[in-house]
Amino acid sequence: MGEMTTRWRDFVRSTPIGEDLHEVALDAGWSVGGGINGGFQMAVVGQVLAAVVPGKPHPVTFSTHFLSAATAGPARVRTRILRDGGRFATLAADLVQDDARQGETVRVSVTATYTDLATSPDDVRTTATPFALAPLEECVSTSFAPPELREVAPLMDRFDMRFDPACIGWALGAPSGIGELRAWFRVEEDVAADPVQLLLAVDALPPVTFDLGLPGWAPTVQLTAHVRAVPSPGWLRLRQVTRNVAGGLFEEDCEVWDEAGRLVAQARQLAVLPR
Amino acid sequence: MGEMTTRWRDFVRSTPIGEDLHEVALDAGWSVGGGINGGFQMAVVGQVLAAVVPGKPHPVTFSTHFLSAATAGPARVRTRILRDGGRFATLAADLVQDDARQGETVRVSVTATYTDLATSPDDVRTTATPFALAPLEECVSTSFAPPELREVAPLMDRFDMRFDPACIGWALGAPSGIGELRAWFRVEEDVAADPVQLLLAVDALPPVTFDLGLPGWAPTVQLTAHVRAVPSPGWLRLRQVTRNVAGGLFEEDCEVWDEAGRLVAQARQLAVLPR
Repeated sequence: MGEMTTRWRDFVRSTPIGEDLHEVALDAGWSVGGGINGGFQMAVVGQVLAAVVPGKPHPVTFSTHFLSAATAGPARVRTRILRDGGRFATLAADLVQDDARQGETVRVSVTATYTDLATSPDDVRTTATPFALAPLEECVSTSFAPPELREVAPLMDRFDMRFDPACIGWALGAPSGIGELRAWFRVEEDVAADPVQLLLAVDALPPVTFDLGLPGWAPTVQLTAHVRAVPSPGWLRLRQVTRNVAGGLFEEDCEVWDEAGRLVAQARQLAVLPR
Repeated sequence: MGEMTTRWRDFVRSTPIGEDLHEVALDAGWSVGGGINGGFQMAVVGQVLAAVVPGKPHPVTFSTHFLSAATAGPARVRTRILRDGGRFATLAADLVQDDARQGETVRVSVTATYTDLATSPDDVRTTATPFALAPLEECVSTSFAPPELREVAPLMDRFDMRFDPACIGWALGAPSGIGELRAWFRVEEDVAADPVQLLLAVDALPPVTFDLGLPGWAPTVQLTAHVRAVPSPGWLRLRQVTRNVAGGLFEEDCEVWDEAGRLVAQARQLAVLPR
């Protein structure tokens, strides 16, 4: 089977190799800037955790601290149940790799709350309103990204992302200075995103600092995602904004809306400001 | 020394009792709804972690999962260094208590990133603007709260909180339905808040669901705080808002501004919607 036909479920597949221990493979196609994309690492861990407690497959909160840069290749996910009772289970996981010099090294450390969103109460009283996003046909595909960006971000070939033309100036050397990116997003044309894939979605856009005229690498320190609903089939709408660039750090707020108009995920990360 | 004259630094004091183990006392005065306030638990843990890595006393990210209700009395904080290098240290901690039936029980599980905010880069390019807050002299002190509220929330006597009259209708049986609370806040008149005290500040307001006409208990599932600067002396300005009440849960976004006009902390929690 060729690489291009590998499905999402295969990228996040894991094999149990011991008690509370799973082997995973971090595919090189999810690289960005020489490391593996943080959102993809979260999804890999999130998928392992989805099977830890039967009947609680969905990450309603997912907090990740990023400790070292993950590289393509084999990795392991070590899981712990912190609490399981009632509607929620609180779980912890480390994604580790064998480093040639340092031995077993933690890449990300996760604490998360799992539940079953499908059987959660069905009340929706969201007062947030969807952000404006240009129609899909007016948006700009990542396949139009400059070659130097595509080279450092192979992950852009792993999904379909269409940028709102109003915040794509950075790709043409004219960032808006506002600190906002908006795009349509989907990983597979024929399979709806599941709650775990939303962990990828909340960190899939380029750093919002691109729109501030800072095109450099912006490593994430910490990211917390809330997954609030099982997305409807179709495209996801992503928005990242920053409002507090200070002290060499910036926060990045992400919203993910589905085609049914539901705010399915919110995330906030703290990242290091590029120089 | 009478209880009323106990200082903040005494409330968050800890004693080392073993390797990576500290004893703390959860003062009954920080109770709310029969348990110990979550923000106070975070501050107690945060203060212990402030001394774990020399030169890195400030919690730039602080993620807490709430596992069981803490009660007044002795507790222990167990700490771990996940990574220490460069500008940041990533730390973990559990706050545990001895439960009569279940033995040692984890109350909160924390993962946090510590740094030295005082020596961080001094760039401030915050685009967020401070929220509107009525002048202090027009605001309503918690000492005017209804007796039944003060009875279930003794912590209201532990600090000075002055509510914006525009969002205090819930205390008079007429919640606005908007889902927003704003107040001035300080713990001590003569001592400026430090970064650890901001962990208290981000969870000090009543649940924003009070303003939605839901006066019940709203237990926090998870809270992530970013502490971005050492606050200036004086009052802090707090705002909590919710925009996504759905599935029996709601998110609560908190901003903390200091008197110098700096956005010193941002936090988001996910909590269970009162019935």
